[in-house]
Amino acid sequence: MEAIIITIGDEILIGQVVDTNSAWLGQKLSEAGIRVKKILSISDDLQEINSSLQQSIGEADLIITTGGLGPTKDDITKKAIAAFVGSELYFHKPTYERIKRIFEKLGRPMSPAHNDQCLMPANAEILHNSMGTAPGMLFNFQGTKIISLPGVPYEMKAIMEEEVLPKIIETSPITIVHKTILTCGKGETVIENQISEIIDEFPDNIKIAYLPALAQVRLRITGTGSDKTGVEQSVASYTDRIAKRLGDMVYGYDDSSLPQELFTLCSSKNIKVATAESCTGGLIASKIVAVPGSSVYFQGGIVAYSNEIKTIILNVKSETLQSCGAVSETTVIEMVDGAIGALGVDVAVAVSGIAGPDGGTPEKPVGTIWICAGNKDSKSTFLVQAGKDRTKNIEIATIYALDLLRKFVLKHYYQA
Amino acid sequence: MEAIIITIGDEILIGQVVDTNSAWLGQKLSEAGIRVKKILSISDDLQEINSSLQQSIGEADLIITTGGLGPTKDDITKKAIAAFVGSELYFHKPTYERIKRIFEKLGRPMSPAHNDQCLMPANAEILHNSMGTAPGMLFNFQGTKIISLPGVPYEMKAIMEEEVLPKIIETSPITIVHKTILTCGKGETVIENQISEIIDEFPDNIKIAYLPALAQVRLRITGTGSDKTGVEQSVASYTDRIAKRLGDMVYGYDDSSLPQELFTLCSSKNIKVATAESCTGGLIASKIVAVPGSSVYFQGGIVAYSNEIKTIILNVKSETLQSCGAVSETTVIEMVDGAIGALGVDVAVAVSGIAGPDGGTPEKPVGTIWICAGNKDSKSTFLVQAGKDRTKNIEIATIYALDLLRKFVLKHYYQA
Repeated sequence: MEAIIITIGDEILIGQVVDTNSAWLGQKLSEAGIRVKKILSISDDLQEINSSLQQSIGEADLIITTGGLGPTKDDITKKAIAAFVGSELYFHKPTYERIKRIFEKLGRPMSPAHNDQCLMPANAEILHNSMGTAPGMLFNFQGTKIISLPGVPYEMKAIMEEEVLPKIIETSPITIVHKTILTCGKGETVIENQISEIIDEFPDNIKIAYLPALAQVRLRITGTGSDKTGVEQSVASYTDRIAKRLGDMVYGYDDSSLPQELFTLCSSKNIKVATAESCTGGLIASKIVAVPGSSVYFQGGIVAYSNEIKTIILNVKSETLQSCGAVSETTVIEMVDGAIGALGVDVAVAVSGIAGPDGGTPEKPVGTIWICAGNKDSKSTFLVQAGKDRTKNIEIATIYALDLLRKFVLKHYYQA
Repeated sequence: MEAIIITIGDEILIGQVVDTNSAWLGQKLSEAGIRVKKILSISDDLQEINSSLQQSIGEADLIITTGGLGPTKDDITKKAIAAFVGSELYFHKPTYERIKRIFEKLGRPMSPAHNDQCLMPANAEILHNSMGTAPGMLFNFQGTKIISLPGVPYEMKAIMEEEVLPKIIETSPITIVHKTILTCGKGETVIENQISEIIDEFPDNIKIAYLPALAQVRLRITGTGSDKTGVEQSVASYTDRIAKRLGDMVYGYDDSSLPQELFTLCSSKNIKVATAESCTGGLIASKIVAVPGSSVYFQGGIVAYSNEIKTIILNVKSETLQSCGAVSETTVIEMVDGAIGALGVDVAVAVSGIAGPDGGTPEKPVGTIWICAGNKDSKSTFLVQAGKDRTKNIEIATIYALDLLRKFVLKHYYQA
């Protein structure tokens, strides 16, 4: 079964609103075994809506439109679809009663604009909206289901989950299974070479996609077929083999994240953690703290942006700063020891680097970043040679620091 | 001039990635006076790419595709477009040299996959990618410009801003002048009421748009017309009147930001600044440090996530924590004094709050956040009552803290 999503509204085209509805619909539909063939964003315009429906009607079994069902003048989706399927509008009393009750609850009179929301296309199946006034609509037209939903995300989601998905899932013949492997530290080509033999064994119903981001690559393994358990098993076993092959560059699966994994690793062994940041300026700590409950393991950190603070608070030796420089392996090691001492934690991670655009030298160009993760007894250090872009350098340093901390904890508290 | 955006990649269709590229492109293009007619998301599939280009070629003057230019097997956009415009691929030496240098810097060998990235369509104008290996491409085909960009956001944005937009803007016929007023702390309806008289005087060629974000509203004043200087003058004068009316809630203009304004205010008066953060966990410091050169005024900060660190490093009295609690006006005041003492700065900002989801009480529900900005002699404090969402609460606290710091510096070092 194939679907096309059509989001209607100028705010998306001028980039004032990011289209999160389509992403959510795409997820729900592929979970339901429906392949989203295309996502289309168009303006609130009768002709655009008409021609988009015209183009899509032959291409998919299911068309879902969002937006343009509100009470204001620019909301024309209902009119447009009714015209497209050649349907009259009639006064739908149950909708009127429902909207009337909503306004009675609000203690406000119902506006004429909302009266229009009670006019429904004769051949539409009404989809109940538990979150707002505008009902959804389902049309069966030329062998294609056309479903029209409001653009307000929580209204759209409510109608999908309560009214649409139950209907669809029964009728869907094939299963689509996704599993995503999260990796850090290597590029997609390196990864591809490392797992090519496994990929070559893939049957036709198993595919892999590489989703690169800064210093990270997500590998999405997708299986399709009518035999649900069979597909799930084969996706699971290939995922397993690939993950084993990639080793410790794999930090998690699906919607996890480095801070999420750190939270799990450290909290379950009751490891107290702190940060000592120079060029990342607190970004590492802020990523750690973004995870709810992180206070159970994260104590805090020092943003040692100036050398004074490196010496005063983190106890980095002035000789070290003079002889090796603030951006050096020795400095980040002393920063870790300083953080452990000053903040009374088990493990700390430290970063010092040249984010740029200025401050580079021939020996230490912009993008030179030293990272250290360690406890009292041992340290792991890592040198990043990033590029010229300040924002990118700070983000790369943050990701590598979180990953080095993860690997240190794994090695010394799990494999030890 | 009309444009169609085509984003290529299954990850968007299955909702694994939210398509933020299109929103960004939509903004940039409409600012350049180009109307985005349609946004299309399709899968990495030769036929899909071909038929989408076929459909779009007649409909728009400009087609921008993103995605599918990477080195791995699932990246087929270049092949697809080359086939569509009937162009051979040839070995593009400058690209090869550039990619080779990138790998030399990384100290890694260049893979065969990356050799493929050096094959370029014969009739494509190469668009330099300053952020990654895959170059962008520009084709002139049947009177339509087809521009192909990588899907990685920072690479796509770099090529658009450095290579594409300058070209486009020249060719645009009428002048569109935008001026954006940046405000913090009040909602759009409050602002709208405060400036309604001025808006009512707008001639037809002047428009205003309210772009609300977390704790901030951007007011975009747009003027259109053939008389460039006339439009510019009238936009400037209306902007000026509105800004005066809104007073100190206005912190800057256009692409500025609170950290950027802080940089200017503090560096020009040589004010040394530090942060003391609890619930924001370093996010305030990281925003400050994101501005190049911030080290001239920002010394560093303490992420005092645990109470121990608040007392040990920031010298917050245990009695205070016991009697008033960690989230209290007294605590944030003592955190500011502690930061000034420990880090030897002139001015500090401190935040302590309950980000949630847990930790709330009837007296101090989740979203209760105390902020203080001050120097040795005086302090300003501010209480934020935010909502239940952890991520939002942390961001709101960060924005209000930066704004309180800005207002404190203005009041005590500029108006004094």
